[in-house]
Amino acid sequence: MEELKNAAYFTEYEDLEVHEIMLRDRPRQEAYKNAIMNNTSLFRDKVVMDVGAGTGILSVFCAKAGAKLVYAVEASNLAKVALSVIEENNLTSIVKVIHGKVEDFVLPPTAEKVDIIVSEWMGFYLLHEGMLDSVIFARDNFLKPHGHMFPSEATIYVAPCSVPSRFDDWNNVDDVRMNSFGEMLRRQKSSKPEIINMPPQNLLHNGVAMFWMNLNEIRSEELEYITFQEVIPIQHQGKHQGFCIWFDCRFPGESYENAIVLSTGPAAPGTHWKQCVVVLPDTVCEELEENSPIAFKISMIRRNDDKRKYNLEVELIDSNEIEHPVPCDCHLTKCILVKTHLQNMDIS
Amino acid sequence: MEELKNAAYFTEYEDLEVHEIMLRDRPRQEAYKNAIMNNTSLFRDKVVMDVGAGTGILSVFCAKAGAKLVYAVEASNLAKVALSVIEENNLTSIVKVIHGKVEDFVLPPTAEKVDIIVSEWMGFYLLHEGMLDSVIFARDNFLKPHGHMFPSEATIYVAPCSVPSRFDDWNNVDDVRMNSFGEMLRRQKSSKPEIINMPPQNLLHNGVAMFWMNLNEIRSEELEYITFQEVIPIQHQGKHQGFCIWFDCRFPGESYENAIVLSTGPAAPGTHWKQCVVVLPDTVCEELEENSPIAFKISMIRRNDDKRKYNLEVELIDSNEIEHPVPCDCHLTKCILVKTHLQNMDIS
Repeated sequence: MEELKNAAYFTEYEDLEVHEIMLRDRPRQEAYKNAIMNNTSLFRDKVVMDVGAGTGILSVFCAKAGAKLVYAVEASNLAKVALSVIEENNLTSIVKVIHGKVEDFVLPPTAEKVDIIVSEWMGFYLLHEGMLDSVIFARDNFLKPHGHMFPSEATIYVAPCSVPSRFDDWNNVDDVRMNSFGEMLRRQKSSKPEIINMPPQNLLHNGVAMFWMNLNEIRSEELEYITFQEVIPIQHQGKHQGFCIWFDCRFPGESYENAIVLSTGPAAPGTHWKQCVVVLPDTVCEELEENSPIAFKISMIRRNDDKRKYNLEVELIDSNEIEHPVPCDCHLTKCILVKTHLQNMDIS
Repeated sequence: MEELKNAAYFTEYEDLEVHEIMLRDRPRQEAYKNAIMNNTSLFRDKVVMDVGAGTGILSVFCAKAGAKLVYAVEASNLAKVALSVIEENNLTSIVKVIHGKVEDFVLPPTAEKVDIIVSEWMGFYLLHEGMLDSVIFARDNFLKPHGHMFPSEATIYVAPCSVPSRFDDWNNVDDVRMNSFGEMLRRQKSSKPEIINMPPQNLLHNGVAMFWMNLNEIRSEELEYITFQEVIPIQHQGKHQGFCIWFDCRFPGESYENAIVLSTGPAAPGTHWKQCVVVLPDTVCEELEENSPIAFKISMIRRNDDKRKYNLEVELIDSNEIEHPVPCDCHLTKCILVKTHLQNMDIS
């Protein structure tokens, strides 16, 4: 059963159109290229593994950055394309294409472990349909102690938002009221989160980090169930109609401040990951003023029937019934009093 | 079998996302809205039929333009959405939603035939996955003599073009040669035409009309096999790598010159129809100078297994072996001599 699922996954990746979309994704390409090519000091004469090499382009970057050996591991038939690309770029002496799953890979008996693992493993809202498990496996089995992971960190963000494309847009379509269409659309789509480009002006908050991982340390078990509960004050007034979820990835660099960050947030240039939006039922949507508190719990639960997929669950909580952070910027009297008290203490 | 195919077609239309895309297609919306709303003299107190009414928005336009009765005929379950939209716009006394195929529709015994048929029936490259047969059926059975068709005319255009997204783009992807990927992509996609947005600068010619139809006269039999053979001189030099196909629709208006035209061409604002591109095999692609002749035959053949679909066939012809138009702007000596001779005759 699981074997069949995997087979389907790898077949899908043979649809070259998916790879065309990724190769045309400028923020993705630029982040990986700059992270690798501006870090030649890390790559020079090093051994690298590219997990899920796809068309092989990241392996070529690594070779050009000075790596002495790159294992380009690709499970799907795309390994053949990767091999042709490596040949075309005259890098067959450096890049070794391995057609197989990284879980089945065995280092040659005399070979050293790798200094760096490079992978573009991220799925929608980071984890959905991604391949982080394979990257973790590769790290645990093939990376030298203190080796580098590219990317090295990932963060998932969440923000309450308006979703006019599912609500207000249908009040007036060329002077025709189409709210009943909007309602049907919401009903048809309510069963799963949507992957859309969210205009930044629809966010009611700039976003809070709901999950952070260090790629050198994260374990697969930690990815089974991710949950986050928070109270946040609205920063930009508007209709609360959903939650928007996105992620950033950070790459190792000379200094933490100058490190390359690939952001897939609403304010960043668009990527093929877009953003993930969970639309709320009509009955709980409300117009919120600045500093109104929103309390919510959001959970990402790995599916048992398909480990590559996640279910998203969002729960709105009555903001009077849970503890707020101290200090809290929301407009509840209790929070204003605590904040004022703390400010007075600071001054004294 | 055919019944099953139809069932699948109508189910697909229940996916509201398709309708969302159409309702957000500005050129489509504006063309229909203006064609109807700027023609109140044609609509006032008239009986209209909207064939394939979908969400009902065109029926609402007709009612607002003064129609006394609109039959909104919709075969899919979307008829329920249309009914809600009509209710929402307080037009139930004018617009009658009919949930059924137009082929099964029977006018009430005492009812008059309709003055106008409105329909957005166009598919990719006009005919593919469209529903023109149903519009023709409606016209033949329900339109008064000298009634109006909205749209009233349609034209299919073809132009030779470059297709850098399938060829030259892969020479250099972030300084990596990926021609082998481009070649695989072409091989994977060679079996069918692609629906893409063609940048106008990739056209080698502004386009020639390969098929024109008057909606008041066209018969279904004429749609079985459409073929066009032509010699055209290249207007803009470049690499000939494919043929681009698109269509225009014209609506009735006060005067022919002022009529609303919905264009889906590369130079017009983008629509959800985009353009259709047939990519040529590498072996016949060539760099062409201005005035080089291209001779070709293009055929649209209705599929027997699915009457809603068409196969496209393109044949390149040796331009020395067929007769050129007289005069012809191409750079062959024969054509230059004929053209000069004709010009001299004009002067004398």
